[in-house]
Amino acid sequence: MENPFTDEYFMKKALQEAEVAFEQGEIPVGAIIVVENKVIARTHNLTELLNDVTAHAEMQAITSAANFIGGKYLKGCTLYVTLEPCQMCAGALYWSQISKIVFGARDEQRGFVKMGTKLHPKTEIVSGVLAQESADLMLRFFASKRK
Amino acid sequence: MENPFTDEYFMKKALQEAEVAFEQGEIPVGAIIVVENKVIARTHNLTELLNDVTAHAEMQAITSAANFIGGKYLKGCTLYVTLEPCQMCAGALYWSQISKIVFGARDEQRGFVKMGTKLHPKTEIVSGVLAQESADLMLRFFASKRK
Repeated sequence: MENPFTDEYFMKKALQEAEVAFEQGEIPVGAIIVVENKVIARTHNLTELLNDVTAHAEMQAITSAANFIGGKYLKGCTLYVTLEPCQMCAGALYWSQISKIVFGARDEQRGFVKMGTKLHPKTEIVSGVLAQESADLMLRFFASKRK
Repeated sequence: MENPFTDEYFMKKALQEAEVAFEQGEIPVGAIIVVENKVIARTHNLTELLNDVTAHAEMQAITSAANFIGGKYLKGCTLYVTLEPCQMCAGALYWSQISKIVFGARDEQRGFVKMGTKLHPKTEIVSGVLAQESADLMLRFFASKRK
């Protein structure tokens, strides 16, 4: 039997979170953290609601997962996030020593790759999973804001 | 009359916060945010207590100041922090568009300068204010941990 727990499977859950953000007028980015195929954190961007630039989906996911685990290091965990993390989030992920990061769409302007932010040497990176779906959601969001 | 509100004056308050962190077994970093010579946020590192790598003094100061202001941008604000910000904190400060950052001791290994993290182009940086006092506190902390 095929393994149902693919990166796409989990990214769909992150996309669902991004859609919730969209409906709430937040820049639509969603994130989940998974350990042994179990979702232990499920978050979306809340910068508008909380009036707080630090309330990115990834930051909340890190805090939430650490709370679930009862420890601050996320070894053995995988983050799925619909958009490439920024400097802040990549910097937080560096400290967390998370095992794997899977992201959807690239952020060519402010993503950590362009900005040169260092991740932990033990962290594996996978990019481009459901990238088109994530990018489409962002484009729809900004188009709706321009109306 | 001499202006009493110097960078040293405010850095002393950040150092007091770092000392509170020290007493609580946290890596001793303190931060305050000031607007028009008024302290609107006063925080210290809480990563151990909260089991959360995102709980650096600066992150909490940003959230706290934004809460006080009622808006997420920290234009007109100055952050005083005893240690050079890391990638995560510098990334958060980038988003906040804070007007000025004053830090004490350099972090040669994981500070944002070495790591190449970009700050907002409008953010002014001052370094080395009470650097020795801040560094001494860190050294005393790590010496006490090795005992």
